[in-house]
Amino acid sequence: MVFKIELSKRQEHILQIVKDNGPITGEHIAEQLHLTRATLRPDLAILTMAGFLDARPRVGYFYTGKSGTQLLTDNLKNIYVKDYQSIPVVVGEGISVYDAIVMMFLEDVGTLFVVDKNSLLVGVLSRKDLLRASIGKQELTTIPVNIIMTRMPNITMCMKEDLLIDVARKLIEKQIDALPVVKETGIGYEVIGRLTKTNITKAFLALADESI
Amino acid sequence: MVFKIELSKRQEHILQIVKDNGPITGEHIAEQLHLTRATLRPDLAILTMAGFLDARPRVGYFYTGKSGTQLLTDNLKNIYVKDYQSIPVVVGEGISVYDAIVMMFLEDVGTLFVVDKNSLLVGVLSRKDLLRASIGKQELTTIPVNIIMTRMPNITMCMKEDLLIDVARKLIEKQIDALPVVKETGIGYEVIGRLTKTNITKAFLALADESI
Repeated sequence: MVFKIELSKRQEHILQIVKDNGPITGEHIAEQLHLTRATLRPDLAILTMAGFLDARPRVGYFYTGKSGTQLLTDNLKNIYVKDYQSIPVVVGEGISVYDAIVMMFLEDVGTLFVVDKNSLLVGVLSRKDLLRASIGKQELTTIPVNIIMTRMPNITMCMKEDLLIDVARKLIEKQIDALPVVKETGIGYEVIGRLTKTNITKAFLALADESI
Repeated sequence: MVFKIELSKRQEHILQIVKDNGPITGEHIAEQLHLTRATLRPDLAILTMAGFLDARPRVGYFYTGKSGTQLLTDNLKNIYVKDYQSIPVVVGEGISVYDAIVMMFLEDVGTLFVVDKNSLLVGVLSRKDLLRASIGKQELTTIPVNIIMTRMPNITMCMKEDLLIDVARKLIEKQIDALPVVKETGIGYEVIGRLTKTNITKAFLALADESI
């Protein structure tokens, strides 16, 4: 369950005391604030439940080193590529631009991955690459895709164990729509998935719909 | 500040009691649970801070009607289209498919909006629409875009005051990449922005980077 909480001035003060003096007992925190232990109990419970503080019997409270931001990040760190990846569509490097466009429509995807005869990744084709070719002078049925594709080692890839948030950052920074999800084989990369801005948009939606 | 909390069995129980009997005093909740008021104080403080319960002096605790999910949704309800929209690129309905593709590359966008002579929205052109035309038999310089565009009233639109989460849902449900952000003028819709899966991906990233 995820929600928003504003820490009170007193809770911020307690956090600071534990940061500076921890591990420290509840009694000693209360002393520093000139309050009773009972008055502080709800605040300490909240700070502990929220993950800011941890408590050990006979030792006292200590600071976990997590800020509110890190706690949110912890939450987003539970979303991995493998939770949202789609099935990849691959083509051979010898097919024509025309056939690649037809394949894109048949499979209803915006990105194709090009593989060699060992099924290893050698290129990526976006709608943008294919559109660029379509306004060229050449006949689309005669241009092979390996002339227009983005090729290794210029392909941005990801692994299924990567954090979705890191892939989102790559998509924005490199201004691309999709990444191949790959597996290293020793002689190259096998394409096992596709991660697109559509997958990220679905993850964004799921944050809102979570646990309904 | 947003973070994750697991409610304890006792807290869930308290929530249920207040749902069924609220407004109810702390003493009466304690009685029902056969516990002391002091024991319950941290739980009541947490449930109140988290927004599940509200308390009024001399009346007692009452249920706010907000589930954990709604509380997260409250948070996502602070993100609007206007916070993330991009600048739209528009073309006239008479231009050719060829010129539209060139415009898409010049402006580096994936969607063009087609307007009439009064600058009102009449169509939308995606990379997919243009690619489809490019594998047809006709010369691209001779096909006007209004033959291939998606036209009113089949255009999914949004307003700048719409919630980003609602637009994300539309993009996924309708399987489209971008929506025009429009303003009603009485005689039609003026295009004032563009909202894409890239914008949603940026919002997703911002959730992680927030307040760093």
